[in-house]
Amino acid sequence: MKELTRTEAAEFLRSHDNYCILTHRRPDGDTLGSAAALCRGLRTIGKNAYILENPEITDKYRNLHDGLTETMCQADATVVSVDVASEKLLNAEFAALLPRLELLIDHHGSNTYFAPQGIVDAGSAACGELVYDILMELGVEMDKSTAEALYTAITADTGCFRYSNTTAHTLRTAAACLEAGADTYRINKALFETNRMSRLKMEAYLAQHLELHANGTIALALIPLEAEHECGVGEDDMESISNFARNVEGVQLAVTFRTDKTGATKLSVRSAPGYDASKVCAALGGGGHVAAAGARVECGQTEAREKILEILSQQGYL
Amino acid sequence: MKELTRTEAAEFLRSHDNYCILTHRRPDGDTLGSAAALCRGLRTIGKNAYILENPEITDKYRNLHDGLTETMCQADATVVSVDVASEKLLNAEFAALLPRLELLIDHHGSNTYFAPQGIVDAGSAACGELVYDILMELGVEMDKSTAEALYTAITADTGCFRYSNTTAHTLRTAAACLEAGADTYRINKALFETNRMSRLKMEAYLAQHLELHANGTIALALIPLEAEHECGVGEDDMESISNFARNVEGVQLAVTFRTDKTGATKLSVRSAPGYDASKVCAALGGGGHVAAAGARVECGQTEAREKILEILSQQGYL
Repeated sequence: MKELTRTEAAEFLRSHDNYCILTHRRPDGDTLGSAAALCRGLRTIGKNAYILENPEITDKYRNLHDGLTETMCQADATVVSVDVASEKLLNAEFAALLPRLELLIDHHGSNTYFAPQGIVDAGSAACGELVYDILMELGVEMDKSTAEALYTAITADTGCFRYSNTTAHTLRTAAACLEAGADTYRINKALFETNRMSRLKMEAYLAQHLELHANGTIALALIPLEAEHECGVGEDDMESISNFARNVEGVQLAVTFRTDKTGATKLSVRSAPGYDASKVCAALGGGGHVAAAGARVECGQTEAREKILEILSQQGYL
Repeated sequence: MKELTRTEAAEFLRSHDNYCILTHRRPDGDTLGSAAALCRGLRTIGKNAYILENPEITDKYRNLHDGLTETMCQADATVVSVDVASEKLLNAEFAALLPRLELLIDHHGSNTYFAPQGIVDAGSAACGELVYDILMELGVEMDKSTAEALYTAITADTGCFRYSNTTAHTLRTAAACLEAGADTYRINKALFETNRMSRLKMEAYLAQHLELHANGTIALALIPLEAEHECGVGEDDMESISNFARNVEGVQLAVTFRTDKTGATKLSVRSAPGYDASKVCAALGGGGHVAAAGARVECGQTEAREKILEILSQQGYL
């Protein structure tokens, strides 16, 4: 893939007239917000542009794409993807357009460079941050809707500026969105301060069943399937559930247990500096990073709990 | 009080040599962070400066003031207050220094102007944002500790940029802190992502006992004293507890009930646009804003609940 600078990416976008924008499967705020901002920005400078309707878009984000989508990719459209790290992250219908993909815009260091040309900036906390830079190169003046789309992308991918990917440029881009009229309070409230009862019930279950060891430094959170059913949670509700135990005061290493369809146990380990989640998971054939790792064991949670306690003891944590 | 511009406040600070800085009672991240940043900044430009040790400082913020405090105000020191809206917010020992207070720096629109001169900027989301501006006027180059103190002030008073007080200037000031080396991830994790078990148990109680009416648009959260005792919560744990019910998906108006020492019921009402919390509370002799109001009724929670249901019905919410 030919790697473009921001200026070159802007030049490419200036040199065509009709755009079809692709987003990834299980679309999040970044891919959807980036697409909306790019689409609106291109229209501002007189281009014809639309987003290919993503069938998996959720209610939380639906209004971002109002008036911007088409259900078919027109034959003469130039196809661009945003926030898509790999061709595997496109659904079958979108993947069929891969031969026509001309430009990718992304921020994942793991990008597989599946387009003839593109810009991948792993230093951008959100793809939206990079889209902002390109829109500025194009001389786009952000309106409120564009600013809200970009702000959504950025706040979603940084956990409202809490994750370690947040840079000074991230915050300044958000400042520009606010200045252009983005209602950041409303966006953050919808994204971060609205909780489903099912999720709250799951957290209540965890608060009451959390198992603490070693003076509260080690936490085990077992989540039997029956508890998931009783709380009425879906997969959406379980997003980042492994952070719950990690965020308890004093906890340095937290292990969350879930049961998959086959009856096996999936372990998510989260740890603070000085504790090695990846080493714990490696002992069970899993892997990951020092602060966040995972493993899958072919047994029920009770047995998996015994194994983990043994490993934690062997590694000096208990 | 003589109101100063940022430049004049900086001139004042340049014209004296020995500073004693005051913070307010029940000190939060903003007053403590602002004091630390001002103290460090003044030292950077060759001044003698210290913070008068606040006996109420909590563990969460203690490290901010390491090496910066004294227990006595020296006789020749120039006394400055930060983030103090009124003389009533100083403890008795600090209030005894009021006749010597020469400059106040604050961002509360409700400031009572209790110093001969000062700068009050209600447009600053945090007092720390204003302190940053003054330090820039003084030509201070922020080091990591100063940047972390200012970032703490700003993130604490904006709920990590989620509150509606957040402006583009707030985000740009935070960007400058990050650029100067502030470990914003660590600060936010400590402030926003570390939960005490007692608080989590209280939230678990609420998730299980929340009473929903009118298709889930109205929520009543009764918190009997026994529940507080069982969860082991202190007043610190109950901070913003009235947001819990408000943040449940679909809830437009939430009433949280607590019992005070006398056995009376304190009601906190929170509401979304289109619902009037202050009108609900006014019917019980209380008051507040459209989105957040309170009332106190001389009866137990069961009776208070009946009264509220009647009022909600009268006002067309049920």
